[in-house]
This record gives sequence, structure tokens and C-alpha cells, in this order.
Amino acid sequence: MVERRKPIPVREAIDKILQMDFSGETEWVPINQSYGRYLAEDLKAANDVPHFDRSPYDGFAVRAADTAGASADSPVEFEVVDHIGAGYVAKVQVGAYQAARIMTGAQMPAECDAVVMLELARTEEGDGKNFMSIKRSFKSGDNVSFQGEDAKEGDILLRKGKKINPGVIAMLATFGCSKVPVAKKPAIGLFATGTELLDVDEALEPGRIRNSNSHMVMAQIERSGAACEYYGKLPDDFDTCFTAIEAALEKTDILVTTGGVSVGDYDYLPAIYQKLGAEVLFNKVAMRPGSVTTVARLGGKLLFGLSGNPSACYVGFELFVRPVIRGMLYTDKIHLRMVQAALGEDFPKPNPFTRFVRSRLEYENGRLISVPSGVDKSNIVMSLAGADALMVLPGGTRGYQRGDEVHVLLLEDDQGSSQPW
Amino acid sequence: MVERRKPIPVREAIDKILQMDFSGETEWVPINQSYGRYLAEDLKAANDVPHFDRSPYDGFAVRAADTAGASADSPVEFEVVDHIGAGYVAKVQVGAYQAARIMTGAQMPAECDAVVMLELARTEEGDGKNFMSIKRSFKSGDNVSFQGEDAKEGDILLRKGKKINPGVIAMLATFGCSKVPVAKKPAIGLFATGTELLDVDEALEPGRIRNSNSHMVMAQIERSGAACEYYGKLPDDFDTCFTAIEAALEKTDILVTTGGVSVGDYDYLPAIYQKLGAEVLFNKVAMRPGSVTTVARLGGKLLFGLSGNPSACYVGFELFVRPVIRGMLYTDKIHLRMVQAALGEDFPKPNPFTRFVRSRLEYENGRLISVPSGVDKSNIVMSLAGADALMVLPGGTRGYQRGDEVHVLLLEDDQGSSQPW
Repeated sequence: MVERRKPIPVREAIDKILQMDFSGETEWVPINQSYGRYLAEDLKAANDVPHFDRSPYDGFAVRAADTAGASADSPVEFEVVDHIGAGYVAKVQVGAYQAARIMTGAQMPAECDAVVMLELARTEEGDGKNFMSIKRSFKSGDNVSFQGEDAKEGDILLRKGKKINPGVIAMLATFGCSKVPVAKKPAIGLFATGTELLDVDEALEPGRIRNSNSHMVMAQIERSGAACEYYGKLPDDFDTCFTAIEAALEKTDILVTTGGVSVGDYDYLPAIYQKLGAEVLFNKVAMRPGSVTTVARLGGKLLFGLSGNPSACYVGFELFVRPVIRGMLYTDKIHLRMVQAALGEDFPKPNPFTRFVRSRLEYENGRLISVPSGVDKSNIVMSLAGADALMVLPGGTRGYQRGDEVHVLLLEDDQGSSQPW
Repeated sequence: MVERRKPIPVREAIDKILQMDFSGETEWVPINQSYGRYLAEDLKAANDVPHFDRSPYDGFAVRAADTAGASADSPVEFEVVDHIGAGYVAKVQVGAYQAARIMTGAQMPAECDAVVMLELARTEEGDGKNFMSIKRSFKSGDNVSFQGEDAKEGDILLRKGKKINPGVIAMLATFGCSKVPVAKKPAIGLFATGTELLDVDEALEPGRIRNSNSHMVMAQIERSGAACEYYGKLPDDFDTCFTAIEAALEKTDILVTTGGVSVGDYDYLPAIYQKLGAEVLFNKVAMRPGSVTTVARLGGKLLFGLSGNPSACYVGFELFVRPVIRGMLYTDKIHLRMVQAALGEDFPKPNPFTRFVRSRLEYENGRLISVPSGVDKSNIVMSLAGADALMVLPGGTRGYQRGDEVHVLLLEDDQGSSQPW
């Protein structure tokens, strides 16, 4: 007799997983190794930026009051009494009708409140002194970058969970973070199961295929921000699988397996969960592909039984495993970012269950267009390479037509959504 | 006298750089280290996928002809004569009104041309034999994944230059690529110049700031797909800079410096290019920020003199350095991907020169919206962290209003454009 499983809605399946509480850990890495990691703490401004009034241009620092009345007809002349390079400070006081030559980024002399850009000044020498004259007036504050105008000491500038991009690194450097607190990469254990699986470097044999799932999932784990501990592949043999999985659970809190969760005679994962004493959260989801995705918990550990079909495996990972990983990276937007798009071509198939179609997102005249990236069968790996999105077609809908509005989950986006969709 | 420089259009500046020809190199990496790298060769199907007819479901392989006439009223019964697990092949021939129990992914018996899904079959035992019966007919080909239906041997599936994502890795594994030909990461040399620069771990001093540019550019280099060779920071001293840069050019073909390219008294890069005998391709670009960006060539080497202002430096890297790197990664879409978007808020400033505004891209009801990510002054680093795009406002335009259509360059996208914009 075939086991009858009751499918639950995708959203309910995700919610069951998220009732488990996995917390992230912090580690400190050198700033030059922090790119692409996730901030483990809010970033607070450790000082004003800039931390002194400075000149944004090459020119002359002056007292704005002295420039009043300067015009083409009656230029005002200043004696240049100082010369301030970036990284240096004023050596003398600047008095009335005096100026300091100042370089981009240099600190303003305390007496000055405006900068005359070099190209607006006419310079001359005389009596062993330097002079410059201008033909227009300047207001107090003209061409000055004021202390704290970019950030005030104590401001919270970034929230934890933010992925570190080049701009974040510039901020971290500005505040002296030579070591950066980042979320430790969660370690995700991985087995591939299936007697049919050959290693990638093995020659093909009748009835057997190369193990593509575990390499694919390793990359998905990496893309999600975690680290993979790959434990190898297992044949369809109950005892071998049970022993290996039991041992792996000593080493990891999150164990992903591919294959072995369907209703075939050699699909041993359900029996293994039972013998382990794990609670099956669900073993059937109202979705295509990936309906056989099974998730179980054992104490504080999670066991993700993904389908052995590559596309089902892929989708199952992104919907169910990724949010747990993202939570451990301190973000509250743990799900794939969802956007709306117009369907780029007809999709006539009816959708008895919620369907996730591997898609390519295009931009046309400011509009988002979602186009299926290939044949949509769950065993087809080719369409995965061209996919940067999953189109969501809700269960219970009939075919869709070009131009229809659909929801799309972005696979290569790091912002995420706080709700699944 | 201030040196007068003639600004050239951005596009012309990019074209001058691209007249130089940098070719990429190939290296072979293990498949599990290939995620995020760029294919150095087209990927051709080394075999049919699948390479045998197989069952996509758990069920029974049958000869479709035998199912003709099966209905609820008159079920047709089959003797189950074989049992084929995934990874195995048929052990006996399947004759008329015989069936083979078959698992997902297993090879079809040669005589069979359809699969009855397990849940549609009713099984019984009798006389030590196994039987199953069905209440509907099947057509030849029903529920069979045919050899080559996913890919035909010899098909070119991916072009070189493609960034390796999890789906690409699944394909590589499928075709037995345990080692993958990827573009070697171009090595980009980097100096920061400026006496004002403190190291990140140094305490602030009056008039001095921490060196944020080189850490930021290192991350930009990494994001673009290259590797940075950081040679440290240099004070504003001609001889020191000249000696260091001359020595660095022995080690790298592409040298990036930050700072020292403006018209200040300590901006030594122009004089250094001259003494090296390098040909200055341009030293002023009609753009904001980054107008002082200077690029020179010396034989087959390129010297990028980026501005010392963080935002100008950032933009200069993305517009001028990144395309050279991408070309070395075998893609022909070397520029930042350009899309159209609606401006999300007023931008009243006039644009005497082409302006690149650090922006955040949002998706609203299927439309792209571009929102400036912070104060747009070239010395403001804070707006960089929130930017995932640069909005392009052409030179010679007046202020823009919310809703106006603008061009936007995507910073975190890997597809790129073949034209700058």
C-alpha cells in the first residue's frame, strides 16, 4: 500500500521550520577579509565624519567677511600667509585680508570660514610675499566640509545583518574597524543519497548518473552565506544511511540530505527519521517541484530531506533551508526578496499546487519581466543555470498569459524579504 | 598658473581605455571551488542528458499498448516481473501484460515505453507472484524522461564569461567536470596616496583621516572578479611615489592609485606619469564625481589615477577599471548593466556635467524606482554603503523630478551590458 501523505501549504511548512530558534554567532575578521560577510553588530559612528572642518577643494581658505564687495571691477587682494597640505594643520593665524593656500581634504584654519577654489583666484608675488585676488564674494561656509556633516558621533549608520559591500567597508575603515564583527558562517552538513550516483570524475554507466545535487547545494549554501560540511554520498541502504546520519548529527545542527524522501522502496529517510526519534514537521508540501520535501527535528537540530530531483532540490533549499541560514546571519529579512513582474511569455500549464518556475528576470523600459528559463520539469538541470529568479504561480490557478502579473523571488539578491510572499 | 585641463566625455574616456587589449588567462579549479568564478570556455554537453531513458516517478514501467482499454469498469492487470532501483538496470525482459516496479531516476526496461505512477496502481499478491492493476490507459512516452531530452551531446549550453552559479555547477557536475576551466583572477595593483592618510588601526589626529579608499577599492576589485595586490599607502612626496610606482609596474599590468591627480601642489601623479614616459589618455572627464580621474598607459600597462575623494574614487573604479577586468574574465558584457527606472524623488540640482548619483534601486508593482541613497557630495562615504546602483544624469540637463525616467547602472549585477550606456 502506498503511504498517503497530507500536503501542507508552503507557507505553513516554512512557519513550522521557523519555530525552531537558531541563533547566530559572531567572529572578528580583518577588514580586508570582510567583503561579502554580514555585520554581526550595528555600526555606530565612532567619531564625527569629517572629524574636523576641511576643504573639499584645492584653493585658498579665507574669512568670508573679507570677500564682501569683491567684483570684476574691484577685486579684493589677500596675502597668502600659510600653505596647508592634506594631513597638515595651519601653522599661523590667518588675519584680515589674509588667506591660506589649502589642498583638498586639508583642515581649515580656525579663523577661516570659506574656501576660494583655485581656478577663481588670481595669484601674484611681490616683495617676497604671495598674494591672491578674487573678483566675487563668498558667504560663510562656502566650500567647507563641516565637522560631522557626513555622520555624527554616536549615529547608528548600519544595522546588523547588512551584507558588507565596498561602501560598507569604506565606512568601517573610516571608523577604525580594522577588525570587523561578522556573523560566523553557519556550518551546514550535507549528504547525497542514491545508489545511482556516480562521482563527478567517474565515467557514466548504464542507469547511473553523476552526483550533481551535492555540488549544486554546496554552492547554494555558499551563496546563502553559510559553509558546507560535505559528508559524501550514501547508497540506498538503510543501515549505512542510518549510521552515517546518526554520526553526522554529532557534528552539525543542520543536516541536509538529497534524495530518499519519496515513496520508493529505497527511500529510507522517513524510516531513518523514525528510528532516530526525530519529529517529522512535514513530509509533503503543496508545491511543484519539491512536493516530497521532508523536514524533521531532533531536539535542537534540523534535518532537511530535499528531493533527489535537481530542480526540486534547488527550490527546496531556497525556500526552506536558506531562511534558517539567513536568520543566523542576523538579518530579519530572511526570505528570498519578492517582487512583482509581468510574465514574459504564456505559461499554459494549470497549477494544481503552488508552482515555482525557474525564471530569468529582465528589465524592459523600467518594467520587470519574468521569463521561464527553460523546460519546467523537475529533473531538468539545464534551466537552473539561466535562472536568477523563481516565479510563484499559486496553487489552484489555471494557465497564465504573457503580460499577467506574477510574483517573483530573486535568487541573486541579498536584501531579502521579511515575509515568504 | 593653474593647469587648464580639457574634459572629455565619459564615453570617450572609456573608449580610450578599451583600445588597450588585455586578454584573460585560464586556470583549472576543482568544481567545489568554482562557485562565483567565470567560465573560461564554452560549456558543451559531453553526453546526452539524461544518457538513458528513465523514469521520473516511482511506479511501474509498462508497454503502453497493453494499457489500451483499461478503465474503472475494466481494470487491466499486469504481472510485476522486475524491480529496478535507481542506479540499477532491468534484470529480465518485460513481456505482454508484464510490468517492472521502477524507482524515480531508474533506467527504463528496453521493452517499456510508459510509467504508471505508483499512486495510480493497485497492487496484489497471489501464487507467489506480484500483480498490479490500473484503471486508465497510458500513451507511449507517458511519464518517461527520454535520453537527450534535457541536453543533446555536443550542444553548446553556456558561453564563456558566464558567472558560475549553483545551476551552472549542477551542469558541470552532470558532464563530469571535476575540474573547471575558469578565468584566472586578474591581479590589480593598488596604492593609496596622501600624507593625510592614517592606517585603519591608527587613532585620529588633527587634519588626518583614515585610509578608507584602499579598503573600499580592494572590495570593488574583489566584487568585479579580480584579485588585489595592495602595495600600501604613499605620502605626498614625489620621489617616494615615483620609486614605489616604478617598482610596482614591474609586478603588475594594471595599477590603480587613489589621490594625487588633482591640481593641488602635492598632486604628483601627473608629474610621475610624465617622468615614467607614460602616455596620458585623459586627465579630466566631463562627469561628477570623478572629474579628475586620470588614466595613462605605459607600453602594455594601464595606470588608473582615481580621485582621492571616496565617492569619486568609487565611481571612477566602476566606470573605468571594472570593464577592463571584466574583459579579462571572458565576458563581452563588460560594463555595468544599464536599466531604466523612474526617479523616486526630486533631484533639483542642475547637471553641467554627466552626474553619477549613488542610488538604491527599488521595485514597486513591477516598476523600477531609483532613489538617491544619501547626500550627493563627492566626499561623502556614507551614501555608498546603501547604494546598489548609479543613476546617470546626462550633462547639460537641469533638475529632475520625481517620476522622470532615468538610466541606472546596477552595481551588484553580474550580467553587465555590452555598451556603457
